[in-house]
This record gives sequence, structure tokens and C-alpha cells, in this order.
Amino acid sequence: MARNTQVSADHNAPPITRILAKFIVGHPGRGWDDALDHEAHRTFYNWLGCAIGASRHDAANAALAAVQMLQPAPQATVLGRSERVDMASAALINGITSHTFDFDDTHLKTIIHPAGPVVSAALALAEHAGHSGRAVIDALVIGIDVACRTGNMMYPEHYDRGWHITSSTGMLGAAAACARLLGLDEQKTTMALGIAASQPIGLREQFGTMTKPFHPGGAARAGLMSALLASQGFTASPRALEAPRGFAQTVSTKCDWNEITHELGQRFELSFNTYKPFACGIVIHPSIDACAQLRAQGVTAGEVERIELKVHSLVLELTGKKEPVDGLEGKFSVYHGCAAGLIFGHAGEDEFSDAVVNRPDMVALRRKVVATVDDAIDEASADVTALLKDGRRVHVFVEHAIGSLQRPMTDRDLEGKFTRLVTPVLGAARAAELTTAAWALGQAPDVRALTRLASPASR
Amino acid sequence: MARNTQVSADHNAPPITRILAKFIVGHPGRGWDDALDHEAHRTFYNWLGCAIGASRHDAANAALAAVQMLQPAPQATVLGRSERVDMASAALINGITSHTFDFDDTHLKTIIHPAGPVVSAALALAEHAGHSGRAVIDALVIGIDVACRTGNMMYPEHYDRGWHITSSTGMLGAAAACARLLGLDEQKTTMALGIAASQPIGLREQFGTMTKPFHPGGAARAGLMSALLASQGFTASPRALEAPRGFAQTVSTKCDWNEITHELGQRFELSFNTYKPFACGIVIHPSIDACAQLRAQGVTAGEVERIELKVHSLVLELTGKKEPVDGLEGKFSVYHGCAAGLIFGHAGEDEFSDAVVNRPDMVALRRKVVATVDDAIDEASADVTALLKDGRRVHVFVEHAIGSLQRPMTDRDLEGKFTRLVTPVLGAARAAELTTAAWALGQAPDVRALTRLASPASR
Repeated sequence: MARNTQVSADHNAPPITRILAKFIVGHPGRGWDDALDHEAHRTFYNWLGCAIGASRHDAANAALAAVQMLQPAPQATVLGRSERVDMASAALINGITSHTFDFDDTHLKTIIHPAGPVVSAALALAEHAGHSGRAVIDALVIGIDVACRTGNMMYPEHYDRGWHITSSTGMLGAAAACARLLGLDEQKTTMALGIAASQPIGLREQFGTMTKPFHPGGAARAGLMSALLASQGFTASPRALEAPRGFAQTVSTKCDWNEITHELGQRFELSFNTYKPFACGIVIHPSIDACAQLRAQGVTAGEVERIELKVHSLVLELTGKKEPVDGLEGKFSVYHGCAAGLIFGHAGEDEFSDAVVNRPDMVALRRKVVATVDDAIDEASADVTALLKDGRRVHVFVEHAIGSLQRPMTDRDLEGKFTRLVTPVLGAARAAELTTAAWALGQAPDVRALTRLASPASR
Repeated sequence: MARNTQVSADHNAPPITRILAKFIVGHPGRGWDDALDHEAHRTFYNWLGCAIGASRHDAANAALAAVQMLQPAPQATVLGRSERVDMASAALINGITSHTFDFDDTHLKTIIHPAGPVVSAALALAEHAGHSGRAVIDALVIGIDVACRTGNMMYPEHYDRGWHITSSTGMLGAAAACARLLGLDEQKTTMALGIAASQPIGLREQFGTMTKPFHPGGAARAGLMSALLASQGFTASPRALEAPRGFAQTVSTKCDWNEITHELGQRFELSFNTYKPFACGIVIHPSIDACAQLRAQGVTAGEVERIELKVHSLVLELTGKKEPVDGLEGKFSVYHGCAAGLIFGHAGEDEFSDAVVNRPDMVALRRKVVATVDDAIDEASADVTALLKDGRRVHVFVEHAIGSLQRPMTDRDLEGKFTRLVTPVLGAARAAELTTAAWALGQAPDVRALTRLASPASR
């Protein structure tokens, strides 16, 4: 969680991103000599001849046919919105939104969030093609297996090096799901994986910016396009993943091939997928859960004198912000998390808004939380005691928080989370209809019955 | 050239690309138990709620606005063809075709082929927006500088590791060129570079497949989209290139920041760009050049008894194929190269066709070539003596081949190459008009005057 094993990182690099931006924006152009300007024309002219000369090549035909599969737009729904776009753009945007709140699923062994790349690609393609819900479910299981097994093969070295592993393996999962939906044969599916292998996306440095959720969206798009290209006869190395200068050996020093092959088709990594109950880092979850359990036992904010919280040192190290000033800081405050648990019984994106973080009752309650370090308590646990004004003490110990593999969210928990996310966008009635449609997806003759419900514009 | 310094490469990996393809294609679906099938529905449902919940977020608005900039298609020309597509797809396809014949430009210090990613992106955007030729030339110089300086910073470690450096730096050059064309300010240009930094493309394992030319095309597309996203307010880390878990430190252990900053804006890497006169690996170029010089001195195939060729051992190691059977093998045959030089005086893509490789006069002449190793001769040189049937000997020593930095192709040489590439596609008259338009690009008020000429459908 606080892993920092990157070898000899250079923390003192000059700000070359900004230096280059200043150069790009500030250079007047034509400030160079005539020889350079002529070289620019030579470079342009040579490029133009090469491009025109090869414009009838098989590679050009296949690539053009693949991009023409995106026309005419619109083909697929931007979930939650009335706009429709081509299926590759839908994969991109739905991949972005599904990860924007950091509220999606987690394959804990690799901390891959697998649905973003895989499902965003699969649903956009299936909507355009009118596939069955059964086909989407199958593609989801298989695509996620490919992405997570690839992650297992390289984790943790690949992640420690700086890759956002969700998207740097996700394009393979998306390609697998789309190849399956398109019904590609084994050779073309090999090509789809190969084309995708050249497009790993995502750097951990982007965490905290919009480019973080761009990563799964970009991976969804890249995987979908790789499958479309393969379907049109585009070629790649059939050893793109494993060759010495292929994907795995280029982006990771750990390449445990056995993680790919062992029990492939028998054991599925999807079995180890988990869902986040709270819209914040997992390290605060046990504390929020414990306070939500106090609430469930009848404890109210008004009667609380003090909350004594005992946690592992890591919790305060990462989320020890006592006086968060806005929603983002609230995500790094176990004090705010405890207050949300007790006052709301849940902590979704709304409970990490600027407004809620600054609500007087929330501020007052979080100041009553006294956190102490006890390294006898596991990182995954929390020990909370509420001291009430009438002298009573209510104690809750959470060994494994809700949402962990040991104590998964129930289907009802997921429905509560879904409803709180979807109702503000589409209304309660539509949220309920979507819930019914999602649980029955495996029986749906056409996924478009569901995607229509996900857009406010249509029915 | 024959570099192979990758540390402890694993050459014995199982064929996991094919193994996964077999699994994806062959698994019946639903072969798993009901619990897994239910988990698939939970994963789908949780993903759907997250995507709808965040669908009004600023990131969604910015990404949607950026992809809507691609509509309505068509916006830009597929060079050499009558089809028009959206500008991002045009960047992709023109980037593919410009590299398909391996005949484009080379920044020798890094073996980056810089025009593919940068110019493919810039011209597609400029065509759609109606920019001036001057703006495209400026964007080309600056974009190529960004890509090649990034290459200098990481070469050779990054390349040795397995990255196709043309495209794994090219998305930055394309982003720079497009940011410049869009007139983004310094902050948004920083964001454009940042978004692009998360999308390095290209593995050397793909060499020999269509995915090799896909790399510069994909980089062009990624760079263009990064600039469009930044223009709509999408954010990235302002330290995306240099941070410990940013681009450079994630994809290279060599990060020489000075290569970015030293004389930035004063010295331009474009000055070191070269153009390939022959459509094959550079190691054969001196031998082809020498035989073309024999031809220029009046030697004809019919009068040749024997050709004595002395070259560095590397030449025969890499291109020693005595009896090539098709065009691709011809590219690895210095014997075929010599025959092409003497018979045609040039060796473009046509001279490496299956038909030409098997032409009786070519087969007969290449069998008269006797190659011997002389390591006193540099890799960049060739020593050729033609022994004629009348007893005469004609000797040519090439120290630096045409197309090298020491002996660059002249503008007339480039025109010959261009004309041979373009005439079969667009006809001689159009090739001549394009030549005039390209040399005058810096004065063109609107690049669309040129792009119209590059399509057979329009005028």
C-alpha cells in the first residue's frame, strides 16, 4: 500500500515537462536558419511520398477498414448521458467515468481494477452489434481473466516500476473480450492480443489527475481497436507477449509465465474480484465500517462524547489528516471517515464532497475522534469505542472490513451503492429498472435493452 | 545495429500469446459454476453504477468534448486514397502508411523515424482546421525536436529494453506539434504532454508485422488526442515526464535530463534527420550505392563478368542471403542489392518486389557478385570492382553511402524517390504538382491546397 521499492528513483529531475511546454508555446517559429527550414520541407516531402506510396498496401486497407467500422457514428451510449458516440469513443469515455470516483472493483492480488478496461470495451461493441447479455458476461469473465493473469505474471515489479497496472494489462483484457464477442478465430485472436500488447497505457505519476481514469478508458479503446484491426486482417507478432523484446520482458523484470498457464480455463481470477463500499482509499475502510456498525447499533452523533479509534500505524500515516478542508482531503482523513460512517452509515462520493466535509455536524463529530496507533491491530482491521454522554461505552471491532474478500459486499449492499450513484443522474425509477436488467443480463437477448435504460434521453 | 545488450532475456518462454488466444476462442462460456456467473453480474453491475454516477464529472465532459471534435467525419484525407476519415483516424492511417515500406526518415543518433508520428498528426489536424503551411512547418520542427530529444534522453537503454523508440517517444512529438497548432497555452501544453506520456506505443518484437508501422500511426493518433483532450480542460501531472513514477523513469533506466534542456530552442534535432534512398536496411546501402555509381559510369549488366565486393563482416552477417526467393528476402541480400543498383540505379520498394527478385537478369547478375569480408572497411562503406568481359576493371569505393549525414540525398534525389513512390498511385502529373506544393509549403496560406492534391478523388 505504501510500497516504495523503486530502485534508485531520481527525485531531483528538472521540470522537463514544463520546460518543453514553454519551448513549444514560446518559440516564435522561423527563428531558425534557412537550412533548418529547408530540412523541414525535405522531411515533410519525404514523409508525404512514403505515405502516398504505401497507401494501397494491405496494412492500409486493414487499418482503414477497421476505423470505418466506427462509422457512421453514433453507435453506442455514453452511460448516464444522452449523447451517443462511435463505439471506440464510448469505450474510452465509459472507461474514464467508471474509474473517476475510484469507486470501482479491485482484484486485490494485483490491485487491478479490471472492469473498467474490459467491460467498457465489451459493452460498447456489444451495444453496436446487438450481442446478447450472455455473450457480454462470457466476454467479461474471459477478458478479466486475461488481464488479471497478466497482472499476476508481472506484479509487483511492473507496478513498482511505475505502471498503472489496471491499464497496462487492461488493453489485453479488452482485446480478449472484444475478440471473443467478434467471434475471431484463434489466429486472429492471437493477432488482436499482439496488436494490443504494443499499447500499454498508464503511469502512477498521474494519480490525482484526470489522466488516472483516462488510463482504463484508453485501455478499453486500445483493446477494442486491436480486435477490430485483427478482424480486418491486421497482423502482429504471435509471440508479442512472451518474446525477449515482447510486452512482458519490456515492461517487467518479473515474468512468471506460470501465472498465465496454470489452470487456465479452470480457475478464474474473477472469483477474487472485490467491490469498494466506500469512495476512498481502502486503508480507511475498516474504520468507516466500524462507525457504521455503531450507527446500526443505535448510536447517534448527538449522544457521542468521544470516539476512541485504535488502528495500525499505516492508517494514520496515509490518512491522518485531522482538519480536511475539502472533499479530496476528506479522502485522506480517517477522522472524516469515522464521522461519515456514524452520521450516514455509508461513505460514497457524495459523502466526500466539499459541502459534506465542511458541514458543522461533521466537523464537530470528527473532532471527537481520538485515534491512536496500535500495531497489534492489522492494517485490515479497526477497533472503535464510542463513549456516550450518558456514560455508556459501545465497542466494535472490525477484523475485515465490508468489501474485503473475507466479508464481501452482499448483493443488497451493491444495490444500495448502485442506487446512490445512479439516482442523482437518472432518477430512482430508472435506477431500479437498471438493477433488474443488470441482474438478468445473462438472459437478455440483446444488451441494448439495458443500454437504453442507461441514457436519460431514451427508453 | 546488431545490438543485443538486453539483460538476461528469456528466450524460452512458453507461447502464452497463442495459449491465451486458444483459451479466449475455445472456452465454451458458462462452463464455470453459478457462483462465478453471479460474480460476473456483480462486477458488471458495480461497473455500471460507477460509470453512470460519474457521467457528469468534469473529466467526462472534457473527454466527450474532445471525441466530439472528431465529428462530423470526414475531416481529413487518407493520403493517396479517395477515402476521408476523422482527423484522428487520418493521423493513424497516414502514420501507418508512411512507415509501411521502412522507407521514411531517420534521426541516426536514436534511430527514431520522426516524421511518422509528428507529421501524420500535424497534417491531419491542420487539414481539418485549415491551418497555414507555415504553421505545419513550425509544428514539425518543434514536434520532432521534442520526440528526438526525448529519445536522446533515454537512448540506448530504452531501445535495448525492447521499445520501438519511434513511437514510444513519438506520441510526445505529436502532442507537441498539435498543441502548437491548436495554440494551447503553456499550462494546457503541459497537460497535453502529460496525457501523451501515459501512452508510449511500440515493441521491437513486432518488427516484420503490420504492427510495426501501426506504431508511428498509433503514436500520431495518441498525440493528437492528447492535445485535443488538453484543449478541453483534461488534466495530467505537470511532472508526467520526469517524476519518479513518470514516463522516463518508468520506461528507461537512462534518463539524461540534459538532453532535453541543453540549447533547447537554439539547436534543433531536425538538423540531424536523414532520408533513406533505398527501401531496405541501411547496412546494404553502401553496396547498392557503389553499384549505382558503376552504372552511372556506363557499366551495363550485359558486359559484367564478375563483381568483387569487399565489405565489413556485419554486412554479410545481416544481409548475406545468396539466393533470395521473394521481395522480403531480397531486403536481406546484398547480392540482390548490388544487382538492383547496377540494373536500375536505384532500389525502392518496387525493386524489392517478388517479381523483380525473381527476374532472370537480376538472378543472373546477383550470381556474379562475389562478396568477401574485409574488416578494414567500415560498416558504412563498400568497395566494389566490376570485372568486364573485355578485361576492363571499374572500381568504386563508397566511404559514406548516399543518404548518410556525410552525404545527404540532394533535393533532386528526394524528388526522384518521391516521384517513383507517388506516380503509380496518383500519376506523374499529380506527383509533379505535389512536389511543387511541398517545396512551397511554408508559403501556403492553407494546407488543404496540398492535401487535395494527395487524393485521387479531388482536385
